[in-house]
Amino acid sequence: MSELKIVVIGGVACGPKAAAKAKRCNPDAQVTLIEKGEWISYGGCGLPYYLGATVKDLNDLMTTSWEAVRTPEFMKATKDIDTLLGWEATKINRAEKTVEVKEVKTGEMKVLPYDKLVIATGADNFKPPMEGINATGVFGMKTPKDAVDMQNYIKTEGVSDVVVIGAGLIGMECAEAFINWGLNTTVIEMQGSIFPQVLDAEMGAVFQNYLEGEDLNFMLNTAVEKILVDENDKVVGVQTNKGVVDAQMVLVAVGVRPCVQLAVDAGLEVDRGIVINDHCQTSDPDIYAGGDCVVTTNLVSGQRVYSPMGSTANRQGRVIGINITGGDATHEGVLQTAVCKMFDWSLGACGLSERVAKQLGYDTVTAIVPGPDITHFMPGKKLIMTRLVADRATGRILGVQIVGPGKVDKRIDTMAAAMTFGVTAKQLANIDLSYAPPLSSAMENLTNAANVLQNTIDGKAKSMRFEEFESKLDSDDVVFVDLRTEHERSQKMIPAKNQLHIPIEELRARANEVPKDKEVIVFCILSTRGFEGQLILNQAGYDDVKFVQGGIQFWPFKK
Amino acid sequence: MSELKIVVIGGVACGPKAAAKAKRCNPDAQVTLIEKGEWISYGGCGLPYYLGATVKDLNDLMTTSWEAVRTPEFMKATKDIDTLLGWEATKINRAEKTVEVKEVKTGEMKVLPYDKLVIATGADNFKPPMEGINATGVFGMKTPKDAVDMQNYIKTEGVSDVVVIGAGLIGMECAEAFINWGLNTTVIEMQGSIFPQVLDAEMGAVFQNYLEGEDLNFMLNTAVEKILVDENDKVVGVQTNKGVVDAQMVLVAVGVRPCVQLAVDAGLEVDRGIVINDHCQTSDPDIYAGGDCVVTTNLVSGQRVYSPMGSTANRQGRVIGINITGGDATHEGVLQTAVCKMFDWSLGACGLSERVAKQLGYDTVTAIVPGPDITHFMPGKKLIMTRLVADRATGRILGVQIVGPGKVDKRIDTMAAAMTFGVTAKQLANIDLSYAPPLSSAMENLTNAANVLQNTIDGKAKSMRFEEFESKLDSDDVVFVDLRTEHERSQKMIPAKNQLHIPIEELRARANEVPKDKEVIVFCILSTRGFEGQLILNQAGYDDVKFVQGGIQFWPFKK
Repeated sequence: MSELKIVVIGGVACGPKAAAKAKRCNPDAQVTLIEKGEWISYGGCGLPYYLGATVKDLNDLMTTSWEAVRTPEFMKATKDIDTLLGWEATKINRAEKTVEVKEVKTGEMKVLPYDKLVIATGADNFKPPMEGINATGVFGMKTPKDAVDMQNYIKTEGVSDVVVIGAGLIGMECAEAFINWGLNTTVIEMQGSIFPQVLDAEMGAVFQNYLEGEDLNFMLNTAVEKILVDENDKVVGVQTNKGVVDAQMVLVAVGVRPCVQLAVDAGLEVDRGIVINDHCQTSDPDIYAGGDCVVTTNLVSGQRVYSPMGSTANRQGRVIGINITGGDATHEGVLQTAVCKMFDWSLGACGLSERVAKQLGYDTVTAIVPGPDITHFMPGKKLIMTRLVADRATGRILGVQIVGPGKVDKRIDTMAAAMTFGVTAKQLANIDLSYAPPLSSAMENLTNAANVLQNTIDGKAKSMRFEEFESKLDSDDVVFVDLRTEHERSQKMIPAKNQLHIPIEELRARANEVPKDKEVIVFCILSTRGFEGQLILNQAGYDDVKFVQGGIQFWPFKK
Repeated sequence: MSELKIVVIGGVACGPKAAAKAKRCNPDAQVTLIEKGEWISYGGCGLPYYLGATVKDLNDLMTTSWEAVRTPEFMKATKDIDTLLGWEATKINRAEKTVEVKEVKTGEMKVLPYDKLVIATGADNFKPPMEGINATGVFGMKTPKDAVDMQNYIKTEGVSDVVVIGAGLIGMECAEAFINWGLNTTVIEMQGSIFPQVLDAEMGAVFQNYLEGEDLNFMLNTAVEKILVDENDKVVGVQTNKGVVDAQMVLVAVGVRPCVQLAVDAGLEVDRGIVINDHCQTSDPDIYAGGDCVVTTNLVSGQRVYSPMGSTANRQGRVIGINITGGDATHEGVLQTAVCKMFDWSLGACGLSERVAKQLGYDTVTAIVPGPDITHFMPGKKLIMTRLVADRATGRILGVQIVGPGKVDKRIDTMAAAMTFGVTAKQLANIDLSYAPPLSSAMENLTNAANVLQNTIDGKAKSMRFEEFESKLDSDDVVFVDLRTEHERSQKMIPAKNQLHIPIEELRARANEVPKDKEVIVFCILSTRGFEGQLILNQAGYDDVKFVQGGIQFWPFKK
């Protein structure tokens, strides 16, 4: 085989993976990896954990499992890959198949010929144009240097109050880190709920309610107008449309933008990110791209989406490495799967949010089912709340979101696997999930949620969302039937005007106590009894009965 | 709707579920639940945890999540189900559609007419016919009474040594309970490895190695000939083909047998268990069956299997409840998914074992990939070892087995979902599994394992199983190349005759130190470096090179 020349632009996740896989597939290939920064192949997603001192040594983010640091020397010795560290690609000449590169420090230029080119330029933090954005004490979180700089600033500048602008994944992970440092932390978000790209508002509200108990402050529906500075151009606060927030440090985490300038200049097809086919090939057949600089396909909707994620970058890198050495591999798209752990809770999502599903025109139906993450009689059980969204016509699951202290990620990955194959509610209910009391339940959360969903699609289960439930608390036209035990009731009352307490065990006998002239809303803690209660009252001649989706365990009452 | 008469025989898992679902679907149905024992609807799988005092109160196994005990009164009040507790079904008269029932205590008889009949008679412990099997101190584990009796016996009879006959799931879970009581515990198994129905021998050996560190004793390939008793017919030991083991208590856990006598007598089709179709309907269209008394279909092989599991019983119960009230639900089969947690490790399996796959004629290919269960730089990471078995021709995953201290069950459920849809190695590698450093890795264990599998199918990765590796340790014709660091090597040496230490980073430069006239086996800890090493040596002109599947982290060396 003649020597194949491969140039890879970008040395963090997709790039090194593509380079290494290409070498494994074709050991004779000449592979050059170009990285403009100071590090290659680091675990960027670990930076918030270094920032919060969960990870003690920054080097840990750059090492292999056997603690080898991925230096250019390591890449050469182990993988026979040439690395140009501190070099930036400045131009792609597609006609002559060369890349111009420049050493950042010296300005020295080189031209590298390629047979196959890989663009893995990643993304940059978006820096909104506003007064004070470049002041001392304003940070972004992208590189190891950012994390180091923030840590130093906290340690040396007497920071006591920090503002995080943006309640997305990175902002929130860093907010936890700031709480770990004992800082008074306020997250400001333009949208009305936290994790707005991941969770629908009602699930975000549940998670927010938990985080407020961990001393995190939130200002939602709030626009930052400018960053306030002192005479030395050091941050002293943030001006919002709802007033001023004091802060000696600000993290701007309002999202990332794919680095596509090189691709644009080269005339490649770009639509927010670089457009690739399922072989990770750009509009130029000799140029491949992957990672945070590309757009991909949401496998549920078929829509083009921008979904930067380290895991996807690695998968695409592998596919690229195979294809540029003559193989045939595909990456069809993503489910926009996301998980996040904060303090003792986690959240996760996969597929479409209800909001997006509705925007796309789906007639959606939901099931919200809380439950213990292991068998309820076992010590150590923790709750999770699972919410499935399906297409009413077909029963196909469009999305799942889960929050709670229990094992959220387990169920998210199960759903990712099932949704890859277009699972329906009926199919989901029958998946042979594992069961052993210390690890799961005989009727697993996903099984129960699938069954509730199907009952709802079939018109048997009639429920209402918590938002509606809460809006009716003061209504004279509604009676709330509390199906809980006396003991449960003594622990948490709900602020409803007309309420009746009839434990589920007594409901059949006492159904006639329920007023006939009002809308009936039955509820319990986890909504297990709610559905049963609805059916009992239906049988007793009450037609206008609904149970509260998910019971009252998790919902944050506003009043 | 005229009143539909439903009789359900068996009150533990499938039966109550079928009864309750039937009532929900048709509130006017007359449903009678018959249970010959003293309890209904208890969490039988929790009994080992009550035995081991992890669950303190036996009532916890009978209660709902709101601590209501499922008594006949509860079933009547909440679900309008009539329960005959302590009544046994003695005969099914299919022609006249009646069931004869007898009260166990009094012998009183009744005849119950049915429109639809449900058989959920479960399974009984198999009691091998041997001397001493009925002695005082010999127990089985099936009902709450068994657990209570064993606990009392331990507390009052001065038990210090216990023998568990059978290393299946129930025997092993009880063995952990005995260790919790401080008992000297020996598990005797006829077959050559533990969990023989769940794990292949090599995976069983890894788990056994761990359990021996937790002071559990094993005698494998060992047949129990008789149980030895004293003059009061109390157990004093067990006579095996390998000698006598002292024991003041014996648990017989050699498996269960489906209770099919009623079905056989009624002329229903029975093949080990009651034969049902995908509607859980027996050969009589008005008689349905589910749970531990039926046989079902393994969804990977399409073969009829007996796979008793509480989760399956519940799913089948729901399907029955829908179908006997005029609905249309299906349960296609199972993946024989199983998980078990013992001390700080777990194990899990889904699909076919390699042994069964080979028996069925598949040309199998395996990948064994250990790795941390969360990102390797995060504190709290724990290892798991994942083993995939696929069909070489199609790449379809036939089975997965995982062991280790990390989160095994998460990956097993993910595989259960994927294997429900016949996932291939290539598809598995691209599933958009969730990633966040505290919860998972960018390249998840299943992703890595799928990639190694595909590399193997493609002929790129050339590996050998640990058994072969170990068998060649003394060979003069083999050279073992240790790719680990000096530090790693100092912690654990392998007992190989010809070994060469070349860290992976130096292998390209020092390849010529490897003898040309020997078979070359490269190895590291987790086999990440092993594959790389094989490729480097291949490139250097060595053709006969293999790496050790799974590295050396988990394997128990016999010498």
